[in-house]
Amino acid sequence: MTDQMQCITLAQRPVGAPKDEDFKLESRPIPTPGDGEVLVRVHYMSLDPYMRGRMNDAKSYAEPVALGDIMEGGAAGEVLTSNHPQFAPGDMVFGMFGWATHGIQHGSMLRKLDTSVPITTSLGVLGMPGFTGWYGLTEIGKPKKGETLVVAAATGPVGSMVGQIAKARGLRTVAIAGGAEKCALATEKFGFDAAIDHRAYDDASSLRKALAAACPDGIDIYFENVGGKVFEAVLPLMNRFGRIPVCGMIANYNDTSPPEGPDRFPMFWSALLVKHLTATGFIISNHFDQFPAFAKEVVPMLASGEIAYLEDIAEGLENAPRAFMGLLEGKNMGKQIVKVI
Amino acid sequence: MTDQMQCITLAQRPVGAPKDEDFKLESRPIPTPGDGEVLVRVHYMSLDPYMRGRMNDAKSYAEPVALGDIMEGGAAGEVLTSNHPQFAPGDMVFGMFGWATHGIQHGSMLRKLDTSVPITTSLGVLGMPGFTGWYGLTEIGKPKKGETLVVAAATGPVGSMVGQIAKARGLRTVAIAGGAEKCALATEKFGFDAAIDHRAYDDASSLRKALAAACPDGIDIYFENVGGKVFEAVLPLMNRFGRIPVCGMIANYNDTSPPEGPDRFPMFWSALLVKHLTATGFIISNHFDQFPAFAKEVVPMLASGEIAYLEDIAEGLENAPRAFMGLLEGKNMGKQIVKVI
Repeated sequence: MTDQMQCITLAQRPVGAPKDEDFKLESRPIPTPGDGEVLVRVHYMSLDPYMRGRMNDAKSYAEPVALGDIMEGGAAGEVLTSNHPQFAPGDMVFGMFGWATHGIQHGSMLRKLDTSVPITTSLGVLGMPGFTGWYGLTEIGKPKKGETLVVAAATGPVGSMVGQIAKARGLRTVAIAGGAEKCALATEKFGFDAAIDHRAYDDASSLRKALAAACPDGIDIYFENVGGKVFEAVLPLMNRFGRIPVCGMIANYNDTSPPEGPDRFPMFWSALLVKHLTATGFIISNHFDQFPAFAKEVVPMLASGEIAYLEDIAEGLENAPRAFMGLLEGKNMGKQIVKVI
Repeated sequence: MTDQMQCITLAQRPVGAPKDEDFKLESRPIPTPGDGEVLVRVHYMSLDPYMRGRMNDAKSYAEPVALGDIMEGGAAGEVLTSNHPQFAPGDMVFGMFGWATHGIQHGSMLRKLDTSVPITTSLGVLGMPGFTGWYGLTEIGKPKKGETLVVAAATGPVGSMVGQIAKARGLRTVAIAGGAEKCALATEKFGFDAAIDHRAYDDASSLRKALAAACPDGIDIYFENVGGKVFEAVLPLMNRFGRIPVCGMIANYNDTSPPEGPDRFPMFWSALLVKHLTATGFIISNHFDQFPAFAKEVVPMLASGEIAYLEDIAEGLENAPRAFMGLLEGKNMGKQIVKVI
């Protein structure tokens, strides 16, 4: 075993869409775990849209990644050395090891993985994205049988969880996705009642017409995870007492200036008022106390096949930046993962 | 008794702030009530900010007033002739008689008034504005003892109800009002713990500093009824899990173009997300089923003096337009009413 690890650091802050030069592949000595710490060899790492926000030098709900630091992120791997009583070499764990082949975390920050399911599921369907979809839909969306739900990025790990849980609870589910292939996936693999290809519509108004046709009884829950054109298309179709869980907006992550066009605020505010809508934001990391409830509901649904999932696995740590760029452009099919080992 | 009534019609649609020429005082024949209808002599009519919206030729939550039609509005008066079994001449009633000395409504649209309290209270503290404040605070704001509430236009009939109910439920209450006299009213008459004069601060940022000092534990409920600078000042001070009942925004009613400056939407959306805020809009006319619950709680509080109220009564129907212009500029002290008889 070499004493060197590989990692990807933030070389410069991206302006707009990230480029190759914003990242740097480096070798560093494998660190030695201290008291209570665990050294892990990463097998799979997660790529998620929120990481784009961490690359900006702006106050958000988390500190930005410092220039020269290893990019942050969740990963699943095998314990090599453990100074924590709850972990032993060979255990498979999930932790925030970042974009790297190895990492150290205190044992209290690790979750031991059930290896009866593939450990990649800890990054997607049974991880933060799946939990985000489940929490936002059930705790904030408050779905009721017979209602209509719309979610964008519907074949991603958040949207596909939202759609499948909503379907299981008796809602009509309408997917928005980019391209014919993803639309087919949405209906065939994830059971959406209808799927709309947002790329087929130039503006919010034409997209709205397609949505209206797919939602004959209006929209009761719009799970907001993309913003932009989709949001503008959805808003006028919301039913009275509609709910909008807001979990982040990939469409705006690359924005360097406010979008063109009129201030969207009055339009939103007016819809909120007239339709008695409720918009509630959430950051999933504040709600980990609910993770056991999520796992209790979803693990059996996964085992029985009631919940399907899809993973898009890139090979090699060095390809993580390109895979991340593709993720922001919607090129991935399913949860984007990088196989590191 | 003459067979002519006086009324004020919408002569032209105001551009920005209403002017004298936008209104016309007219004489018309007093109409004859049909089957089930009741003819009423108006004693007091209400002036409310929502009326500005009705003057625009734009789809809102209600149809605009047509050019040449009598301005809409609630009023309290005495039954002259009744073709409805539940009403008799001499009864005092509330109904939507508009800006006029006389009016006809179907009996099913009228509310008989308890004359043990002044009938003007049916227009303010015990009417639509008081009900708006009570509903938005209790049903949407979900106040909890020990929390902090902020409301603007705090000496108006909505804001003063919000503040007093919140105070009664054990919250710290902070008023925003225009001018030293209204600030004194807020603390002395309506029992707010603190009052801030928004006219003393040029921009949202300086207003925010004053608010932060008055809200040492942050803001849990912001009752949104004005928008603009106050909203921008409040947003960063909201606590996690804060609630924003949204009942309309007087500050923007005269706007003919979007406000200057950056798109406020990203700022709002980001705050919603990071702080897990919930914003819920409502139009009070959709919730009249809760009016009895409101009256049950508030009428005894009014009788015992626990709820104070203030009315600003202009004399004469012909002065309604000027009083309305003053209302939009915040010149009134308390609920704006016009004495018609």
